[in-house]
Amino acid sequence: MASNFLRLVQFFLLLAIVTASDPYITTDFVVPTNYIDNDAVDGNFFTFTGLRNVINSDYTQKFTVTKASQANLPALNGQSVSYAFLQFPAGAINPPHTHPRSAELLLVLKGWLNVGFIDTNNKLSTQTLRPGDMFVFPKGLVHYQFNDDPKQPSVAISTFGRANAGTISIPLNVFTGGIDDNILTRTFKIDVTTIHKLEAGLTL
Amino acid sequence: MASNFLRLVQFFLLLAIVTASDPYITTDFVVPTNYIDNDAVDGNFFTFTGLRNVINSDYTQKFTVTKASQANLPALNGQSVSYAFLQFPAGAINPPHTHPRSAELLLVLKGWLNVGFIDTNNKLSTQTLRPGDMFVFPKGLVHYQFNDDPKQPSVAISTFGRANAGTISIPLNVFTGGIDDNILTRTFKIDVTTIHKLEAGLTL
Amino acid sequence: MASNFLRLVQFFLLLAIVTASDPYITTDFVVPTNYIDNDAVDGNFFTFTGLRNVINSDYTQKFTVTKASQANLPALNGQSVSYAFLQFPAGAINPPHTHPRSAELLLVLKGWLNVGFIDTNNKLSTQTLRPGDMFVFPKGLVHYQFNDDPKQPSVAISTFGRANAGTISIPLNVFTGGIDDNILTRTFKIDVTTIHKLEAGLTL
Amino acid sequence: MASNFLRLVQFFLLLAIVTASDPYITTDFVVPTNYIDNDAVDGNFFTFTGLRNVINSDYTQKFTVTKASQANLPALNGQSVSYAFLQFPAGAINPPHTHPRSAELLLVLKGWLNVGFIDTNNKLSTQTLRPGDMFVFPKGLVHYQFNDDPKQPSVAISTFGRANAGTISIPLNVFTGGIDDNILTRTFKIDVTTIHKLEAGLTL
Amino acid sequence: MASNFLRLVQFFLLLAIVTASDPYITTDFVVPTNYIDNDAVDGNFFTFTGLRNVINSDYTQKFTVTKASQANLPALNGQSVSYAFLQFPAGAINPPHTHPRSAELLLVLKGWLNVGFIDTNNKLSTQTLRPGDMFVFPKGLVHYQFNDDPKQPSVAISTFGRANAGTISIPLNVFTGGIDDNILTRTFKIDVTTIHKLEAGLTL
Amino acid sequence: MASNFLRLVQFFLLLAIVTASDPYITTDFVVPTNYIDNDAVDGNFFTFTGLRNVINSDYTQKFTVTKASQANLPALNGQSVSYAFLQFPAGAINPPHTHPRSAELLLVLKGWLNVGFIDTNNKLSTQTLRPGDMFVFPKGLVHYQFNDDPKQPSVAISTFGRANAGTISIPLNVFTGGIDDNILTRTFKIDVTTIHKLEAGLTL
Repeated sequence: MASNFLRLVQFFLLLAIVTASDPYITTDFVVPTNYIDNDAVDGNFFTFTGLRNVINSDYTQKFTVTKASQANLPALNGQSVSYAFLQFPAGAINPPHTHPRSAELLLVLKGWLNVGFIDTNNKLSTQTLRPGDMFVFPKGLVHYQFNDDPKQPSVAISTFGRANAGTISIPLNVFTGGIDDNILTRTFKIDVTTIHKLEAGLTL
Repeated sequence: MASNFLRLVQFFLLLAIVTASDPYITTDFVVPTNYIDNDAVDGNFFTFTGLRNVINSDYTQKFTVTKASQANLPALNGQSVSYAFLQFPAGAINPPHTHPRSAELLLVLKGWLNVGFIDTNNKLSTQTLRPGDMFVFPKGLVHYQFNDDPKQPSVAISTFGRANAGTISIPLNVFTGGIDDNILTRTFKIDVTTIHKLEAGLTL
Repeated sequence: MASNFLRLVQFFLLLAIVTASDPYITTDFVVPTNYIDNDAVDGNFFTFTGLRNVINSDYTQKFTVTKASQANLPALNGQSVSYAFLQFPAGAINPPHTHPRSAELLLVLKGWLNVGFIDTNNKLSTQTLRPGDMFVFPKGLVHYQFNDDPKQPSVAISTFGRANAGTISIPLNVFTGGIDDNILTRTFKIDVTTIHKLEAGLTL
Repeated sequence: MASNFLRLVQFFLLLAIVTASDPYITTDFVVPTNYIDNDAVDGNFFTFTGLRNVINSDYTQKFTVTKASQANLPALNGQSVSYAFLQFPAGAINPPHTHPRSAELLLVLKGWLNVGFIDTNNKLSTQTLRPGDMFVFPKGLVHYQFNDDPKQPSVAISTFGRANAGTISIPLNVFTGGIDDNILTRTFKIDVTTIHKLEAGLTL
Repeated sequence: MASNFLRLVQFFLLLAIVTASDPYITTDFVVPTNYIDNDAVDGNFFTFTGLRNVINSDYTQKFTVTKASQANLPALNGQSVSYAFLQFPAGAINPPHTHPRSAELLLVLKGWLNVGFIDTNNKLSTQTLRPGDMFVFPKGLVHYQFNDDPKQPSVAISTFGRANAGTISIPLNVFTGGIDDNILTRTFKIDVTTIHKLEAGLTL
Repeated sequence: MASNFLRLVQFFLLLAIVTASDPYITTDFVVPTNYIDNDAVDGNFFTFTGLRNVINSDYTQKFTVTKASQANLPALNGQSVSYAFLQFPAGAINPPHTHPRSAELLLVLKGWLNVGFIDTNNKLSTQTLRPGDMFVFPKGLVHYQFNDDPKQPSVAISTFGRANAGTISIPLNVFTGGIDDNILTRTFKIDVTTIHKLEAGLTL
């Protein structure tokens, strides 16, 4: 029984972290249940060091996102903020995607970026950003970032007004999530061969 | 000057309707500024008849959405609810899309529907629904509905927990919103000819 | 001890479902604790079939509400939407009531309905609705629906912008909830005999 | 034209006060548009003196509510708090009512009060309160306060978590708001003569 | 094992109370987990008697706050209201402080009070309040109350639009919370001796 | 009259920007009223270039904050995110302060920082951060950042979960906002000479 019990306890611990809601906590912060008591909470609880090796590392081989959200910094629970650190090698793209639970405010730290989003009226807004420039991607809209420089990498930091904004990559979500071919051919009005070619290219 | 003035007044009127936020009104309801006074507000202000000719009409030639949201029923301002009425001829699809500001709860009224959504972990959840069945599409996730019956049409009603949920049709938003070919080829890892074929098919 | 333990576990499970708040979840959806793990969540978790036998059944003997809320569709937790399906035999009434946690948007599917609400200034707004017509009952206000047709039944669907809106039936809540006679006679400025007659009629 | 213009300006001023939402302002406070500029805002803007003559006055002839909400203290706009000051002569009742937009926390200042509320399961919770006692009436539920002392008056202060909670007095709202007799007889399952007697007594 | 188990249970109980969010509950009220079942909830659960001995007691020796918040009245969970009862002997001060989670609406019950707050533009707004006067302290701003009468005590009640507003006393928080001398000397541009004098005076 | 009219128009324009609430817009974004129409909105509306000269400039003479909030990037209205860019010369401090409307998540870009906050229980949590490290300052709590390196400057970016978080600098707000000497001496339990010395030092 003990092990079942422990599994249940683990389950509750996880649950408590996962389900806690965002902006209406009635305490200064929320201590996860796997802390023995509140006294064990010190500065480390509020610290995330996961970008330490990333921030000035050599540039990445491919587009890389490093997130600091409630999942890896539990102190964000109820504080309605989180970060994503974006590294673009020359020519790299962060393909069209949405965040189902937040707007995004991007700041270019190094290099240049072409960015854009399409609103619910299918209107595209774009911009070319240089270091120090910011761009707002409104809540839930499809947007992308693209480093079209053939030689220079670029780096950006993005912030979200929620502890866990979530990400839906359109190409991966739509073409590699398992939606039936029949639905995809009708959606994009193309033949199944093209669909398979798309799926194959994206799952490489 | 008078006409400029009137244009400005119209502008304010519009603005007042457009920007009012959803769930935290401090009055019973919000009267738009183009009402001369609150006394003119009667039952008609709270009524929408735009589905009267639709609800039992002959079935539609193609997939049709009729919305009842803040745009055509201003009394919804601040009430955090709205509807969409969905009509599917045999074989019709409501292609993958998201609502940036709300979850959706669909109820099948007639016929059958295959439905599904893909979450932020790219996991697909599907269901075959018959009349009377409901299905939840969680907030901001990509989802679709498909009537794969070769002969029978189907009809559904969907509700949203916001006065204006917004809709992003993935194929139209991504392929006909004007995103540069260069970005689309890198996004979907396909050649520009296929992109053009996709765009052409979707803009017909 | 095992049974005490199990009772406590059940208690926590219940608690987790009951207390989770509505619109600010930081995950795509909330999995109740009685699911062994998230992998067990599939399309069935998001489906409610409780209206399958109701939607086209013979009409009911008396006014009947069938709810689809967080209580019977746990996937609604955090999604801020729910439904009520309303069946009115000829001459039936849904007596004055309020929903303490949401506005209501009603759509008539079959037959006709007289509806109305009274705002905080005691002003009544009414309407006669036919199939396809919608009516907004603003948040927390007293409202009713009445099928005054002597022969034809009517059917409506109502939506709420919360996972569990709650319902307070004024006649039952006030006259059969156990409020002291002394308070009721002073409230309605009538004699205790009339109060008892009212109570008796309503508790039949 | 000038007067039309002024009327429109007044209209906008009113509108701005009326529609501003409650808890998510992005400034310290909201200055109404009839203030010439923000510099004119001083301590008086944040002050309400409407209880000055009430707080230690001779007791009232009948049950009296004095509200301090957004309507008479505009600085409350966006601050999500308001008050009601309640004076009960001996034997007076604040009849069953609801607040559509907030819970209530009552504090007895003088005398005793019998209080109660009925939840959405029609369960009654009551208490006898003496000076210094507090009682919570949960959001949107029907509740009452009654001073059953034959000789002593009582005084209470109530707070709400919204700038304008709104009040629905059940007897007045239901019986004097103009709901059709036909609906009331079916609602309370009583004859029209009793309904008329009720209406007459309540409109005195 | 039993005792570990009990400690864990206690832990969950505590957690459930602590983390529940404020205004978006989906039930009438939230029953803490240490109640055996919901049936045990009666009027006492909604009652707080902690001010019974305070409200008309002899005046206090020093400034005294008695709070009624979620911590001592668990029924406030999710109801977004709470109180603080403030007693000022002649000449007493409630020194500059902020509430991180709510605005405050103060009502003077007895005596006079000088009050003020400083907004984010460092602009001071003050008022002299007499019995029956109210004053709004906007959300999160630094404010104080001072009874400068040399002989008369004063009493006030304050309300907050959250179940637990929290309090940060500026002198205690900044000078006795343990911030390093080096930081304090640079913050206030004074020598360490003055800092030590300040700390000593405030920790008496 | 024309100029009065224009002043009023400007006033409304300002008002519309200032009072719009944060997270519950019912449109993709909010267009300020000084835009002639929505068609004039393009990528520039969503862009802020105010950090372009700052991000890689020579280091500042003194601690410098550059904000990107709703005031200088109106497209943030309703999107619940904003930034502050922080530059610390060697030995510089961002003295104890609070943000009345948001938590803060800080990321060190260059150099090292000592940071800390004091919660409502007067408990201090501190950390020494190096490049790439993040630290959460929970909502509304007093916190500081200090570059105690005698030679190296440091740079950080901070994000907030609201379009305009507001800042209260404790030393300036409390000692230079105009609070009466009498109140300050009682608050800090020090003589008026020390208060004057503090005020003089801080207003230099």
